[in-house]
Amino acid sequence: MSAKHSASIIAIGSEMLGPTRVDTNSLKVTAAFESFGIGVVRKSVVGDTQDQLVDEIRHSLEHSDILITSGGLGPTEDDMTREALAEALGLTMEVDAGIIERLEKRFAARGWVMPEVNKRQANVFVGQTTLTNERGTAPGFHIEHDGKHVWVFPGVPHELEWMVTTYLTPWLASTTGGQSRFRRVLKIAGMTESGVEERLKTYYAAHPEPLTILATSGQTELHLAADGAESEALALIAAREAELRELFAHKIFGVDDDTLEAVVGRMLTERGETVATAESCTGGLLASRITDVPGSSAYFMGGAVCYTAAAKIDLARVDPAIIAEHGEVSEPVAIALARGARERFGTTYGIGVTGIAGPGGGTEAKPVGTVHIAVAGADAHKHWKLLWPMERSLFKRITTQSALDLLRLFIVRT
Amino acid sequence: MSAKHSASIIAIGSEMLGPTRVDTNSLKVTAAFESFGIGVVRKSVVGDTQDQLVDEIRHSLEHSDILITSGGLGPTEDDMTREALAEALGLTMEVDAGIIERLEKRFAARGWVMPEVNKRQANVFVGQTTLTNERGTAPGFHIEHDGKHVWVFPGVPHELEWMVTTYLTPWLASTTGGQSRFRRVLKIAGMTESGVEERLKTYYAAHPEPLTILATSGQTELHLAADGAESEALALIAAREAELRELFAHKIFGVDDDTLEAVVGRMLTERGETVATAESCTGGLLASRITDVPGSSAYFMGGAVCYTAAAKIDLARVDPAIIAEHGEVSEPVAIALARGARERFGTTYGIGVTGIAGPGGGTEAKPVGTVHIAVAGADAHKHWKLLWPMERSLFKRITTQSALDLLRLFIVRT
Repeated sequence: MSAKHSASIIAIGSEMLGPTRVDTNSLKVTAAFESFGIGVVRKSVVGDTQDQLVDEIRHSLEHSDILITSGGLGPTEDDMTREALAEALGLTMEVDAGIIERLEKRFAARGWVMPEVNKRQANVFVGQTTLTNERGTAPGFHIEHDGKHVWVFPGVPHELEWMVTTYLTPWLASTTGGQSRFRRVLKIAGMTESGVEERLKTYYAAHPEPLTILATSGQTELHLAADGAESEALALIAAREAELRELFAHKIFGVDDDTLEAVVGRMLTERGETVATAESCTGGLLASRITDVPGSSAYFMGGAVCYTAAAKIDLARVDPAIIAEHGEVSEPVAIALARGARERFGTTYGIGVTGIAGPGGGTEAKPVGTVHIAVAGADAHKHWKLLWPMERSLFKRITTQSALDLLRLFIVRT
Repeated sequence: MSAKHSASIIAIGSEMLGPTRVDTNSLKVTAAFESFGIGVVRKSVVGDTQDQLVDEIRHSLEHSDILITSGGLGPTEDDMTREALAEALGLTMEVDAGIIERLEKRFAARGWVMPEVNKRQANVFVGQTTLTNERGTAPGFHIEHDGKHVWVFPGVPHELEWMVTTYLTPWLASTTGGQSRFRRVLKIAGMTESGVEERLKTYYAAHPEPLTILATSGQTELHLAADGAESEALALIAAREAELRELFAHKIFGVDDDTLEAVVGRMLTERGETVATAESCTGGLLASRITDVPGSSAYFMGGAVCYTAAAKIDLARVDPAIIAEHGEVSEPVAIALARGARERFGTTYGIGVTGIAGPGGGTEAKPVGTVHIAVAGADAHKHWKLLWPMERSLFKRITTQSALDLLRLFIVRT
């Protein structure tokens, strides 16, 4: 194939034409294309209507030589993708008995009988490649048609992601003769987007090429990119990264796909250290994020969700006199929770969180959004008082982000 | 205009074809259409390329009688929307001196001189309606063409939002005669999508109008919709809902925006009852979901995240002999955790969860994904053994969904 590929993406599903859901699968597909220097020229969302879908497939193939579709491969009558592809590309379908067998086994493993409708998922295209889906029931397809390539993936995000990694990326690598765009993402916690912008002024002045800044809840990402031969592109990125690390120092907690919980987990694993939590206003989210990391049972011993004063006293052994004197939302209670967690679970570190998530419970002295976070080690502790007056789930997310970052900084410095 | 309108939306801008940004403007536009019963049949994103844009405008108008475009109205050469519309629809452009004057004043008010390029924003369509933009520099347009309507809006979200409210919504109200669409969503837990489909066979046979089924992790939604006069539409929806409630009975846990955690919270609040948790493999997510609900501090007393056998014994007072005999992942331990949580926190109900989230830790007898859930009350308990062999965060999400549903069913039956 020539170097001038272009791609289109169609997301199929009426639910994405309503006012509540956007297609995010296309971002993962686009990232795969981008690393091989292939531009996405159009993306679209269409409903589960065969005529629309047929037109959309034809229209997309007029504008690009690679087409990705996601969704519409389920077992129900709403799922039209197979039929629309057959019509748009003039393909013939047949039943693959092997797929039916695999599906029946999958259901049997759970003690269920396969519903009759699932047999629709065994319809494949004569002469084309069927892609086994190890994450779900809907197989995908790779269809070659008039020198163009159509990749048909399920719409469930983690299934699509697996298919992109397993089938599309290796094909792109072999077809394009290798990666041509290189990326590096640096991740910053504990700074606002405008604070990051401000500190980048000298960097901007020195370098004309764009630096993409992406702010999400509780973190800011710096996206570096370079095109060309691998060694030169990587050298350029490395030089820029060195400058940015100079500017942001320990504010940079990780790179690329790193999450704060994974970074902290790696640090604990390397050091053979452990952690436990005692949290109030974050209601278990801190423990939950720590345990989102595979292998976290090696360093996370447990946590207490202390939603009442009694629970703080009973589970985290907070002295009732401290609560009486300072109130439940206070620096001394946060420190006592951190120490209590550490002692109760016998860990290297303890994290304590106490605050007012809202919408109720605020006072003039302690408004909604007030939060005290503490990390305790054997003979030291560190405390932050923060104010995140925002919607409850965002408050929980950002507060746990701060708590993980405080632990990270505490570990680095001890 | 007749009742059979349909709409398309085109978002214009190369930045939305990269791996980091999605178009969210279309959600605001879709919400406006939906309340007047107008369906969006397709959405697309195209870059700043005139040929692509011309094709896309024509393609969209073949599939709908209302088209909304957002973006590409800025002053730079990247901004092609005006030229593409002129070409696609055969319109003539002229300079509107009034716009130039207004722009110059706008710049002067900030002490700036208007850059020459901004004059491009004074190009309007002969015989069509120009829409003043009080939030920015780019005017919008309402173009009538062959009985179809094209609304051209800027891409900056708060500018677009203002234009939708100021121009589009009033026009929709007058054009549709106030006709509205009414919706009702029924939410089901504890069934697979295909299981739901199977049970709907008689319903499908009896009713030709579409019922949208939406499956997300751990729940399935049935979307009912009816168009027309309010009282008739609502009566139709009520009749269909009654039939569906007959079919699914207690499997339906809520409606519309309900979440399982909010429904359980409402039940506990109404009864003046309380709950506590002792969870292992879900790592705090169960407590976190319960505390996502505003006001949950009234009925959630706390939780223990017991990631080790020692924590199960210490925090949830599980008898070590039970663990020794049955292993940590077993029915007796789940029940002991539920009872332990209930006693420790002095609550009406306790929930216990123990399982193997993976990817490590599975055995032949207890493979990855095995989970035991129990709910305990004063003198009864209920237990489920489930198998969710899937990626870790999905496992946690679905397992907590099951745990909340078990609590709901336990409360209903006691």
